[in-house]
Amino acid sequence: MIQSDEVDDIIAAAHAAADAARGAILPYFRLSSLDVDDKHAPGAQSEGTFDPVTAADRAAEQAMRAVLARLRPADAILGEEFGEAGGTSGLTWVLDPIDGTRGFLAGTPTWGVLIAVCGPEGPIYGVIDQPYIGERFEGGLGRARLTGPAGQRSLAARGARPLAEATVMTTFPAVGTPAEGAAFARIADAARTVRYGYDCYAYALLALGLIDLVIEAGLKPYDICAPIAVIEAAGGIVTDWRGGPAHHGGRIVAAANAAQHRAALEILSQVA
Amino acid sequence: MIQSDEVDDIIAAAHAAADAARGAILPYFRLSSLDVDDKHAPGAQSEGTFDPVTAADRAAEQAMRAVLARLRPADAILGEEFGEAGGTSGLTWVLDPIDGTRGFLAGTPTWGVLIAVCGPEGPIYGVIDQPYIGERFEGGLGRARLTGPAGQRSLAARGARPLAEATVMTTFPAVGTPAEGAAFARIADAARTVRYGYDCYAYALLALGLIDLVIEAGLKPYDICAPIAVIEAAGGIVTDWRGGPAHHGGRIVAAANAAQHRAALEILSQVA
Repeated sequence: MIQSDEVDDIIAAAHAAADAARGAILPYFRLSSLDVDDKHAPGAQSEGTFDPVTAADRAAEQAMRAVLARLRPADAILGEEFGEAGGTSGLTWVLDPIDGTRGFLAGTPTWGVLIAVCGPEGPIYGVIDQPYIGERFEGGLGRARLTGPAGQRSLAARGARPLAEATVMTTFPAVGTPAEGAAFARIADAARTVRYGYDCYAYALLALGLIDLVIEAGLKPYDICAPIAVIEAAGGIVTDWRGGPAHHGGRIVAAANAAQHRAALEILSQVA
Repeated sequence: MIQSDEVDDIIAAAHAAADAARGAILPYFRLSSLDVDDKHAPGAQSEGTFDPVTAADRAAEQAMRAVLARLRPADAILGEEFGEAGGTSGLTWVLDPIDGTRGFLAGTPTWGVLIAVCGPEGPIYGVIDQPYIGERFEGGLGRARLTGPAGQRSLAARGARPLAEATVMTTFPAVGTPAEGAAFARIADAARTVRYGYDCYAYALLALGLIDLVIEAGLKPYDICAPIAVIEAAGGIVTDWRGGPAHHGGRIVAAANAAQHRAALEILSQVA
């Protein structure tokens, strides 16, 4: 078990890491092609093509790793860009500096910084941070809240409703393989509303109590560990398509409640 | 021609209307089902189902109409919710209090308030406002700018690039009729990136210089008049799928530049 003073330490470190990532990423967000071509961009190199999202991704992960090396030196780190660093505490920080890189490049405000703290059983605390809007969703270790431009509010996934009244999100209409896409289409056809294109922001909306299901395939651990912690803290459920643990990535279903989860698994679990 | 002191009046009235809409809408944004069920919602009625987006839509259009009645009494108004009101000046304010109602209900931050001022030839000034983020895109009458959480910046659509390197947006993957959807699919297959689900926010991203094409079908005049003004002020082009005027709605293509527009029309203009 984690002691209460360590809980405060972990949460403080997560916020410090998220703050560092915000500072590292925002100078690269919405650079115009002119900025890029003229190499006025921060960190622009004199040779080769400048890619703002790669530069921002790396800068943010380095900034977060520097914060964690200082504040949580005994913890391990698994980051999208720079891989694994060992630890001795039994805790691992799982970092995705920019989830939704295509959205980032298109200027949408719905990409996010994902920070999770995992124990042996999976995520125990997570942050979904949207630096441009200034929104931070966090869940686990006794917290379930959003801090943003409208102040603070508690996160609470919504109650059960028939699939015919549900709102479902995924990032790409094709979802994954043809078989995976066909299973998603069965749910989409049965649902009231389907929205595409929100990456990690969809999980945040589920934790806010505004949508019912998020379904994706082909995820990596760093794509889903933070959403798991945030959604579970809000009372929702995240598993793979057969109801097993989700923190290893792959096919993911996040549901606002047990009934919605059951209804989705009835269809999704049939995929080979 | 509009005199320069009237230009200032029009722009001031548009900002006052946008401010009024923000104030009217935000109390309804992201209400949880608990808020709705408990009728804690502002303006909740004691009977019938409370629909936050309809309530917000109407409150915002009424608030904008009240502002315009005071500041621009000689201008006509065409609003999504309350129809036409005549005027004598030759100018018409075209209002969509919430563009992207499904996104609004799902809690996404990419719906918008659309305000356009139209003369006999079409839009001369427009605002795309995102109240939750606090972003206001405006174009026309000498302006082309975004004011938002990162301060002010000029709007400028991006330069020409091959369709194979372009980013294309539309709101729904099906786009419209099967023939309309098939034409969109031809462009989507040729493009580098396709993103769905951003409603009016896609036009704002085009004006920011971050994407190349927005293609939609079945639009109403109030959906497109403000985006036309903002995009044209940023140097982009908005027409119907045959290159004709877009401000009556219908099938719309917005392009960052003339070459991109030509490439899209080659495919889109073949639809009967």
